[in-house]
Amino acid sequence: MRFSKTLIPTLREAPAEAEAISHILMLRAGYVRQLASGLYIYLPLGWRVLNRINKIIKEEMDSIGDQEISMPVLHPAEIWQQTGRWSEIGEEMFRLRDRTNRDMCLGMTHEEIITWLASKEIRSYRDLPQSWYQIQTKLRDEARPKSGILRTREFLMKDCYSFDKDEAGLEENYKKHEEAYHRIYKRCGLNFYQVESDPGMMGGSTAHEFMAPSLAGEDEIVLCDKCGYSANREVEKGDKCPKCNEPLKAEKAIEIGNIFKLGTKYTIALKAVYLDEQGKEKPIVMGCYGIGPARIAASAVEQSHDRDGIIWPESIAPFDVEIITLNMNKTEVLNASESLYGVLKSRGVDALIDDRDVSPGVKFKDADLIGIPWQIVVGEKNIKDGFVELKYRKTKEVEKVRPEEAVKRLTERH
Amino acid sequence: MRFSKTLIPTLREAPAEAEAISHILMLRAGYVRQLASGLYIYLPLGWRVLNRINKIIKEEMDSIGDQEISMPVLHPAEIWQQTGRWSEIGEEMFRLRDRTNRDMCLGMTHEEIITWLASKEIRSYRDLPQSWYQIQTKLRDEARPKSGILRTREFLMKDCYSFDKDEAGLEENYKKHEEAYHRIYKRCGLNFYQVESDPGMMGGSTAHEFMAPSLAGEDEIVLCDKCGYSANREVEKGDKCPKCNEPLKAEKAIEIGNIFKLGTKYTIALKAVYLDEQGKEKPIVMGCYGIGPARIAASAVEQSHDRDGIIWPESIAPFDVEIITLNMNKTEVLNASESLYGVLKSRGVDALIDDRDVSPGVKFKDADLIGIPWQIVVGEKNIKDGFVELKYRKTKEVEKVRPEEAVKRLTERH
Repeated sequence: MRFSKTLIPTLREAPAEAEAISHILMLRAGYVRQLASGLYIYLPLGWRVLNRINKIIKEEMDSIGDQEISMPVLHPAEIWQQTGRWSEIGEEMFRLRDRTNRDMCLGMTHEEIITWLASKEIRSYRDLPQSWYQIQTKLRDEARPKSGILRTREFLMKDCYSFDKDEAGLEENYKKHEEAYHRIYKRCGLNFYQVESDPGMMGGSTAHEFMAPSLAGEDEIVLCDKCGYSANREVEKGDKCPKCNEPLKAEKAIEIGNIFKLGTKYTIALKAVYLDEQGKEKPIVMGCYGIGPARIAASAVEQSHDRDGIIWPESIAPFDVEIITLNMNKTEVLNASESLYGVLKSRGVDALIDDRDVSPGVKFKDADLIGIPWQIVVGEKNIKDGFVELKYRKTKEVEKVRPEEAVKRLTERH
Repeated sequence: MRFSKTLIPTLREAPAEAEAISHILMLRAGYVRQLASGLYIYLPLGWRVLNRINKIIKEEMDSIGDQEISMPVLHPAEIWQQTGRWSEIGEEMFRLRDRTNRDMCLGMTHEEIITWLASKEIRSYRDLPQSWYQIQTKLRDEARPKSGILRTREFLMKDCYSFDKDEAGLEENYKKHEEAYHRIYKRCGLNFYQVESDPGMMGGSTAHEFMAPSLAGEDEIVLCDKCGYSANREVEKGDKCPKCNEPLKAEKAIEIGNIFKLGTKYTIALKAVYLDEQGKEKPIVMGCYGIGPARIAASAVEQSHDRDGIIWPESIAPFDVEIITLNMNKTEVLNASESLYGVLKSRGVDALIDDRDVSPGVKFKDADLIGIPWQIVVGEKNIKDGFVELKYRKTKEVEKVRPEEAVKRLTERH
């Protein structure tokens, strides 16, 4: 993509309202813009990051046999009334009426709708297990939207629901999803912890949260450096690890995903039953598994940046490499840049080329701010000797290499 | 994917409420389910079709330099009040209030929001042209939702907006998008016409609609077989072509896309201006371009089916091929099927394998109903002689071939 033709509105200063570093940097680097309280527009770079994260999530979901579907954002009230959550949930739920005066709500989660579907489509033990997921917009009227895209009123969520004959089946599905979540976070380049949590409004018996350490975190977790124990609670004076008795340390962390053993709470309420091997009717046993792609993106920025800007993990960066054309008025520089751009594209390496008519200083500053993991700097002096500079954003190490060597290295990494 | 583990709930009978053939077949073949009036759940097969269509749309948008972004579904009322559409639009707009009692609406289209964005980010003629699109949920409280996924209250739409300095720029962008639309429909395997249309509530000067001939169509268009003239109106007695004077014929057709020269209606209202080469402030000139992926899917079914079921165009089918394992209790048959499935997957051919423990009759009926363009039938007698049957769904022609020949042909087509 060409910088000159793309909407990448970088800002010199951080907007006054931004506090979290991910919020500041994603605004400054032109990834997102706030439309209204808790409502964000994803600009081209921000949307590319989200798509890369979604791709990783989909690959891992598909690899454990989960099936992608899509459910509406707009829900009829009746189904939420049947589980009782229509009245249990307060102002967090957006409610409205349609033109025929029927009560509707906007989906803050999809247990009700998917269980309704299961009640219609699953009949027998032969139809089980099933595991259905979607990557779909959720709407929650948060009392205090904050921290940029960490806590918004509208956001994408990958929500997955498993359906089993019994607790043993649920246990197996829960384990499979837990492992898939570990792979997703690792592939996205995040540090994370898995901690036990309270099922809360979701109901059910057991739940775990996945937490990414970050200064903008809303939760405090306690950690044991020795045995790896972690829990979602505040540290107390003289707190010792219950497993190995070492002193515990505290860290701020945002939740980036959660998994719940829902059991039969929703299936009993919505009569999602199956006939077992003996022809006896039984409620289906459910699990649910959520991940917020935007929270992964924001957590990655919280965990990986320096004073000049973002340092994206290679797996979720908006581009693999940025080509910085220093002298737009020099034919050799232009030709070498364009040739690199063409070759990289043809090898499947996603490249952003900074072809704007601005000073080298502006280009360097913007490149570091945007945080694409690799930069190829094409300048007049080096190109005359047949070299370009290959810069690694994370360490800022620069190496003089032949253009074909730069292509080779990036193609291999890719 | 394995049929035995996938949610493909085929139905023998058409549900009573379904009238349009696309509605009947997409319900019977297990592509979609209706949650409530005008609200649909896409099951795995339906969602795969939509994703394939979206991929084609994205490729064509990207190829003309359009940039993908994402805007919220939930909008603050203020921006819609500024353009006047908050009061102009009636019950078709879903309206609600948030917890602080602010008026909000659900996005039925995104001219207001994108123009707001342009007003913040575009300053100078150097920033133009721009072209931003998204594939995002739209919500419209239709008075009479009908015909399955042809007219729903919630649907995905690819909406694209262009921003230019002047009419000449808009003309160029309009032309580029018009041509991209032609490529999209062709690649999706649709018959279609482009007709002039009334800009209606969108405003602006010129608009065109793309219409797909279909018996479930809500519009009547007139066509000239000789010169290709078409218009969006009912045929009158003795109607002659205004271009070549041949008799006109009438056809039913669904609108599957539209393009508008919006001009400055929204940019003046929302103060989206730029400084021209002389430093003079001018309103940005806009165009907008919409396509409904679900309408493409439904139109494809309307145009391509027989009494046994759907016949998907190869480009948008949920799978490239279905492997039908006739005798699940015969080792040779099972082995040959599994081996074909593995080889096809490894070559990037999307295969559905019918590994259910049901009769051959049920498998044949379901395969024809689902409408995957190619079938490979693996049966006991043929496999003993080293053959499988390769069946082309459209013509039902069957050819006995070696398994490696079937793989070769499908890999080449793919």
